[in-house]
Amino acid sequence: RPLGDRGIAETPSPSVYLSNRGNSIRQHQGILQEGYVQYGMDKYHDTDNPDGIINMGTSENKLCYDLLHKRMTKPDMLHIDPSLLQYSDWRGHTFLREEVAKFLTHYCCSPNPLKSDNVVVMNGCGSLFSCIAAVICDPKDAILIPTPFYGVITEDLHLYSDVKLFHIPLDCEVGIQSLIYLQSLYIFLQTGHLFQGLIIRAVILMNPHNPLAEIYTPEEMIAFLEFAKRNELHAIVDEVYMLTVFDESVTFHSVLSVDSLPDPQRTHIMWGMSKDFAMAGIRIGTLYTENRDLVEALAQLGSFHGISGTTQHQVAQLLQDREWISKEFLPENRCRLKAAHSYLTGELHDMGVPYLDRPAALYVWADLRKYLKESSFEEELSMWRCFLRHKVVLSCGQAFSCSTPGWFRIIFADQQHHLQLGKSECYVRTLHTFELFSPTHLFSCSLKSSDQLKEKDRPVPDTDSLATEEFVLLDCQASKPTDGLDSLIGTLRHQIHSSDWLEKNTPELSAGEDPEILDVFKALLQRARK
Amino acid sequence: RPLGDRGIAETPSPSVYLSNRGNSIRQHQGILQEGYVQYGMDKYHDTDNPDGIINMGTSENKLCYDLLHKRMTKPDMLHIDPSLLQYSDWRGHTFLREEVAKFLTHYCCSPNPLKSDNVVVMNGCGSLFSCIAAVICDPKDAILIPTPFYGVITEDLHLYSDVKLFHIPLDCEVGIQSLIYLQSLYIFLQTGHLFQGLIIRAVILMNPHNPLAEIYTPEEMIAFLEFAKRNELHAIVDEVYMLTVFDESVTFHSVLSVDSLPDPQRTHIMWGMSKDFAMAGIRIGTLYTENRDLVEALAQLGSFHGISGTTQHQVAQLLQDREWISKEFLPENRCRLKAAHSYLTGELHDMGVPYLDRPAALYVWADLRKYLKESSFEEELSMWRCFLRHKVVLSCGQAFSCSTPGWFRIIFADQQHHLQLGKSECYVRTLHTFELFSPTHLFSCSLKSSDQLKEKDRPVPDTDSLATEEFVLLDCQASKPTDGLDSLIGTLRHQIHSSDWLEKNTPELSAGEDPEILDVFKALLQRARK
Repeated sequence: RPLGDRGIAETPSPSVYLSNRGNSIRQHQGILQEGYVQYGMDKYHDTDNPDGIINMGTSENKLCYDLLHKRMTKPDMLHIDPSLLQYSDWRGHTFLREEVAKFLTHYCCSPNPLKSDNVVVMNGCGSLFSCIAAVICDPKDAILIPTPFYGVITEDLHLYSDVKLFHIPLDCEVGIQSLIYLQSLYIFLQTGHLFQGLIIRAVILMNPHNPLAEIYTPEEMIAFLEFAKRNELHAIVDEVYMLTVFDESVTFHSVLSVDSLPDPQRTHIMWGMSKDFAMAGIRIGTLYTENRDLVEALAQLGSFHGISGTTQHQVAQLLQDREWISKEFLPENRCRLKAAHSYLTGELHDMGVPYLDRPAALYVWADLRKYLKESSFEEELSMWRCFLRHKVVLSCGQAFSCSTPGWFRIIFADQQHHLQLGKSECYVRTLHTFELFSPTHLFSCSLKSSDQLKEKDRPVPDTDSLATEEFVLLDCQASKPTDGLDSLIGTLRHQIHSSDWLEKNTPELSAGEDPEILDVFKALLQRARK
Repeated sequence: RPLGDRGIAETPSPSVYLSNRGNSIRQHQGILQEGYVQYGMDKYHDTDNPDGIINMGTSENKLCYDLLHKRMTKPDMLHIDPSLLQYSDWRGHTFLREEVAKFLTHYCCSPNPLKSDNVVVMNGCGSLFSCIAAVICDPKDAILIPTPFYGVITEDLHLYSDVKLFHIPLDCEVGIQSLIYLQSLYIFLQTGHLFQGLIIRAVILMNPHNPLAEIYTPEEMIAFLEFAKRNELHAIVDEVYMLTVFDESVTFHSVLSVDSLPDPQRTHIMWGMSKDFAMAGIRIGTLYTENRDLVEALAQLGSFHGISGTTQHQVAQLLQDREWISKEFLPENRCRLKAAHSYLTGELHDMGVPYLDRPAALYVWADLRKYLKESSFEEELSMWRCFLRHKVVLSCGQAFSCSTPGWFRIIFADQQHHLQLGKSECYVRTLHTFELFSPTHLFSCSLKSSDQLKEKDRPVPDTDSLATEEFVLLDCQASKPTDGLDSLIGTLRHQIHSSDWLEKNTPELSAGEDPEILDVFKALLQRARK
């Protein structure tokens, strides 16, 4: 969903007609909301509004409308059956859940046929997040999530269900090493009683990741699921970009392809049509879980998240058309995504903008830190506003709770890029906007030393330098005290200095724990000791 | 929605995988759930399952599929536009809100064109109830509702938003006099501080009423809205059956037809496609409100209740087809409803079963009290189970929080009735089931005196006997102590006897208050004094 786009304007004053909760819901705004409000009023259009705002912020695939239009207007889509117009099972019509099970069995390479009774279909993954939070958490409980992450999940868990996210800050450049860091940090926080009374019920992981576009290997995912199991945490795995992998040499492995899940009753896999089928507007999110208690509880909330019977029919028709998906849509989609990705990354490369080069998703995570006057989120936001003034709306790192300022998520899957690659006015203007940030233009940026940048560019750091980097990273977080880790380390420091806490709390690894985790743990402890 | 139908079986034991809230959501069951679970596994079908369960409990219009099929498969329904597949305004696409505004302007006879900016469209009225409760109430606040009422609203307000309903028990037979009783009871409760610390934020009224099928006059509705205004209560008016009025001599007046609403900022009108267009499965609920604060707050929650773009297109096409609606669908629908209603009420009449004879909605509220062995909800439930054993699922009064046991809501808008009127096996079986309850069969009912029944049948009682009837009615409620009024009267009685409360709390009417209200108030007070 558009980060922060709820269709309203500036933060309003409290209304006498709403409750405290209502006012807080109404006043809730993502930091990028102003951008999406402006975009809503001034959308770019090739002919009708060529001076409008170009949206490179909302994660939508706009490259395949021709393919979708052709398929979605075939006669099989126009079918009316009495049952489609009647109340149905709130988990989704049986015919749809059966098609989803078959589809996931095939495209996730499940070793055994997946069961339709383990499928819940709702109007979008945001609804699933909201419902799952409501039934596995009590109000004020928390769910772990590594940052940066797709920021809308914060609202998905909080608005209705009053569940918080507890951020585990990862380093954008560390990539897949992150998961070890996640685990060690969890032990670190737990050992130091640093969750501050919060009950942690679950951990969320996106694979492919949003916004990093990382793809985790089966080994990494199993290590992650083992970690969740050891700590009796539900593992919510969001695989909403699973088919959006455009490099044929890379294989995505779904958690559903694992022969034997470590803790199947606490493993819940989400998927949907928004990204992989370029249909955010069709509002389809699916959950696969073997936990029948969860399915039953979700069914109770399903009436708030129901999908039109006619849409359920259309989606089932699409999902069962294996021929079209595998032979037409996916190959062509991948090809177009690859071209668009190459084009954007080529331009970034030519401008000397570092970025994570990953073969998945609809966006590139780009490092614009060198253009910041100083390393602060205020600076990042003014850079984001500058893009907006130049009619390009992007998503900046703060919207993903990134712990380091200066990263931006740039969507490349826009049809203009495909149609007018490198030529269209909009694209030229976008590039021009980028150039405005180069040191010789608009801003006189205090560019960091190129050595420092090079250091940041290396692909996989060893554990020692990882710890050092995290230190830097956590210091940056000081400007956002709510993110908490900084103050938690302060608390731990206090405990260490004022008691025999350190003697009493020696970390020990459980059986099966990766020994690297202990190293990172010790590094974190070392920092707290200082 | 099916009362209590959430697609799961018997009350489960707590799950270790769910939170307290999750377990309570999972275990939540309407009293009729067992019936709908059985129905789900054994649905009647003319050819495939002629011995299956006949559903006369779910309020669906099954008389018009042929008309709908013809319209919904026209080529204009199969349209794909990029914007339909993208994220959109969470209040609904502009094109749809514009069509809804035009539609309501016309069919509600609004004196001025209604504005699309005052329209919010979500996936069903249940979602709207949930969202409105979330933003006008804080957790544990309450909303007033006269009983009997469509019981699913209890879950709509409670499951996500933790808002309670405060029941105002009305007498089923009193009919439109009820609204005066509602107001006097409110003053009574307020004067006696009998809301027990609950903050009452709003009052809900359905017109046409569910399950009574009452139609309120504009004068009654204005009096009701004035009452809400005087007490600074939001008035939520549910007009979801507004076009389902099948007697041409009767005109329904929407609140939107009122020239000048008493408190437009606190008046919110709901409508949807489920009943009037026989499309519960299409998941469309609409809200009209001039309160922009409310609209903005709802927009923030809209992402959880979004509708497929393709469905939004279909609905807009349908709503703008004034020719089809006014000249084909509505006249034919009314004609079929009238015939089905006549058939069912004729049968009830022949059996000597009293019922409310009303020209609206899809159901008849029937008085089966004479077949109860004793006047208790346990007896009512075993009667309901007896129907179920005989393969007919109905809704009994307890599911509507009716204060008197023995009333049933019977859906008459089933296609079988139309196609095989009086002949089909299913209908014969239904009648047979009814007959099983007659004194000479199955039960040896302690039939009440026919005088008593006749007394109950008179159409509009005067105020004195209304008060007497309410006494009987409230005593019946003793078996359901949670309904509260009984114990509230007890509390008030205690206050009166143990202090000078009565001297300090003399009721006074505000300007514009109907003097009849004072009479009912005094009658209630008289009862508390005893």
